[in-house]
Amino acid sequence: MEGDMRNKIIKRIKVKILEDPGFLGKFATMVGEFGALFGEIKTVHIGKNFKIREMDVYVKDEETFDTIADTIRKMEGVDLIEVKDVVKEYHINGKIKVCSNVEIESMDDLSIVYTPGVAQVCKLIQENPDYAYKFTSINNNVAIATNGTAILGLGDIGAVAGMPVMEGKAVLFRELAGINGIPILINSKDPKVIIQTLKAIAPTFGAIKLEDIKAPECFEIEDTLDRELDIPVVHDDQHGTAVVVLSALLNIAQYTYINLKRVSIGIIGLGAAGMGISKLLKAFGVQEIYGADINENALKMFKKLGGKPADLKTVMEKSKIVIATTGVPGLIKKEMVKPKQVILALSNPDPEITPEDALNAGALYAADGKAINNALGFPGLFRGALNARAKTINNAMKIAAARTIAKFTMDGDLVPNILNKKVHQAVAKAVEEVALKTGVVKYLSIVEEEIEEEL
Amino acid sequence: MEGDMRNKIIKRIKVKILEDPGFLGKFATMVGEFGALFGEIKTVHIGKNFKIREMDVYVKDEETFDTIADTIRKMEGVDLIEVKDVVKEYHINGKIKVCSNVEIESMDDLSIVYTPGVAQVCKLIQENPDYAYKFTSINNNVAIATNGTAILGLGDIGAVAGMPVMEGKAVLFRELAGINGIPILINSKDPKVIIQTLKAIAPTFGAIKLEDIKAPECFEIEDTLDRELDIPVVHDDQHGTAVVVLSALLNIAQYTYINLKRVSIGIIGLGAAGMGISKLLKAFGVQEIYGADINENALKMFKKLGGKPADLKTVMEKSKIVIATTGVPGLIKKEMVKPKQVILALSNPDPEITPEDALNAGALYAADGKAINNALGFPGLFRGALNARAKTINNAMKIAAARTIAKFTMDGDLVPNILNKKVHQAVAKAVEEVALKTGVVKYLSIVEEEIEEEL
Repeated sequence: MEGDMRNKIIKRIKVKILEDPGFLGKFATMVGEFGALFGEIKTVHIGKNFKIREMDVYVKDEETFDTIADTIRKMEGVDLIEVKDVVKEYHINGKIKVCSNVEIESMDDLSIVYTPGVAQVCKLIQENPDYAYKFTSINNNVAIATNGTAILGLGDIGAVAGMPVMEGKAVLFRELAGINGIPILINSKDPKVIIQTLKAIAPTFGAIKLEDIKAPECFEIEDTLDRELDIPVVHDDQHGTAVVVLSALLNIAQYTYINLKRVSIGIIGLGAAGMGISKLLKAFGVQEIYGADINENALKMFKKLGGKPADLKTVMEKSKIVIATTGVPGLIKKEMVKPKQVILALSNPDPEITPEDALNAGALYAADGKAINNALGFPGLFRGALNARAKTINNAMKIAAARTIAKFTMDGDLVPNILNKKVHQAVAKAVEEVALKTGVVKYLSIVEEEIEEEL
Repeated sequence: MEGDMRNKIIKRIKVKILEDPGFLGKFATMVGEFGALFGEIKTVHIGKNFKIREMDVYVKDEETFDTIADTIRKMEGVDLIEVKDVVKEYHINGKIKVCSNVEIESMDDLSIVYTPGVAQVCKLIQENPDYAYKFTSINNNVAIATNGTAILGLGDIGAVAGMPVMEGKAVLFRELAGINGIPILINSKDPKVIIQTLKAIAPTFGAIKLEDIKAPECFEIEDTLDRELDIPVVHDDQHGTAVVVLSALLNIAQYTYINLKRVSIGIIGLGAAGMGISKLLKAFGVQEIYGADINENALKMFKKLGGKPADLKTVMEKSKIVIATTGVPGLIKKEMVKPKQVILALSNPDPEITPEDALNAGALYAADGKAINNALGFPGLFRGALNARAKTINNAMKIAAARTIAKFTMDGDLVPNILNKKVHQAVAKAVEEVALKTGVVKYLSIVEEEIEEEL
């Protein structure tokens, strides 16, 4: 739910542009008239009376960009030197690679990391599997597993077409939490096959992150795997999102003096995200949660969680806080909004109601998906669970993550900057502590030995 | 089959040692008396009349090393400053990690590699899956899949205990061929489960390398997967070994003026390695191959391949070249050796007959596993197949690899140095060319576009 989702096409243009007060403004205004937004603007050369600048331009579609390019070409005082398809460029050959932690410069190095030296470590692990935590990458490997049935806002595009998203998550795992994110593309829509497959390869990983698998299959898959495996299995679309939404709610509660546990919260749309949010709010202690969905089975499942199924109208009437994740733009009409309601309309690219419309209709607070980066939660959540050698990620750990994220938010914002590594470190620490406290961690026979070595 | 397999324990010692002619020799002789061998020897400090050296010492077991350490401590002119368990040190936290190819320094970077930018690439792949070859890591990902039933010389130690070997292979993939080797540990001994599991996750990879899976299950698993998937599936224990053995045979043929195709070759031990060697020799054009094994089913399978099943005695009598991969030390007695026979007794750590004994008994040429590094084949073999976008690795490609490896061998050696990257580059090129010639490659609709861009 990051960036302006309507402007999905990103082009990097290089322009030679007149250095004259007001001219850059004139140029930017012209480009803005086509609905374009600017990203990074770099000065790559300073000439006598001009600068060469590289600018990222976010536009709606290729046609719009072509029109902009033509207009730039005709404009006086500007030369369009180059247009780069920067997204494609960044993606060539993929965004991740498997690297070596060790250098192989001599046959002796090889003897140490491969045969015959490696046999010593294999035997150690054979005798005591706990050594795998110390001498292999397993406890730092997280599968990013998808079958491609619910990729971003794109829907069921298949696992292979979803790979760029999985690689993106792996990049975030590496950069923000030092985790080995390993995309696993699964060629099946059958929950049974997906469960069996991931169970079979589970020994490779310290945790499994289910990603972009559609509801309702995602629920059975996650429940079964998390119960039957002794590593955490987390469906990010549910819980990653829920953690970030809860942290945003914690901030909103502070800004608006609302007591989250005492008010009614309404969830519109009970897919993966809506259901994940409901589960976490319930665990957090919210007393009354209303939920609406067009799918009868979703409502049944929601009721089992302790929620109150209702229709859209009722949910809007009864709830102090409304959270919508339906994917249906404009679903919430202005006249449905109650005075002093809090409305988070999170569907991307177009929300169920724009924050402007909601505020105009009397809402106390309103935001859309752009304000809530749902990738903020998972890096620290998994880092903490891996550090604790947790068997699962329970609600207490998720709530600890949400509280920590909320703490790092700048005043007035809903969530902090995702690139702030301190956030992820703090989340990891909080999650690890709660895992240890709540006793969901594996006892390792080698821990004492490790502590001894550290002394 | 690398290094002295009997000396599996490697210690790195730091010693302050008298700088006096003959003293290092005296020291090394003393250490050698315990059966130890030296690896890397580095000078880390030069003092007035001493040097501080770091030495890798290869010994049989921990007890032997302790005895050596005690002896060093008592020796005059030497101080034992430090002992490092260098193998363990190299293995802490594992030998591989997943890295990012892109830098995330700004929110704009994130918009390009993650949402919203990534959606553009996902859509491209959805419309034409061939774009996955260009914009994801898939075609450079090779699963290193094992169930841990036949790890190195260690046997059925389980997949997790085999992880250090899988990571070692991944290190070699990265360092020698620029490939993403991704260990996949499979929690099953059932060929059906293994097949189903790897089929389900196959979209993630450009090829699958089966590793250290025991016979006979390995045959069914490889055959089925390679037939049913449109990516190469290769059991390294069979074919990686076979390629290197064939390249050694090509060199031996040159040294001894033997025409490989015209003589009888005997294979003793029809496990994964023996069977793989048999298949490749048959494909190479060897007319007569005898084979012995204690397992009746192995003999039946061998007969189906066109081999002549026989007992050990007969194989020894009828074969000009004997290749043994039984894992049974001393199986071949001196009196079984025929005059001018070529004997490759490849079992590690102890061969079926030592080269010395074989030569003393009248062999023309003899070698053991130490002389043949079976990891020489796979990096270039897979690199070439991936470059060609091959659907399988056929015998012609394996033979091309073997011939190329043979060409790079220094006179008198059996195979070249595995760390010589030129070997792997040349193997990749040869394999790619043969793949294209033999038509086992996928046609990609985007190739023309790529060529255009390159011009």
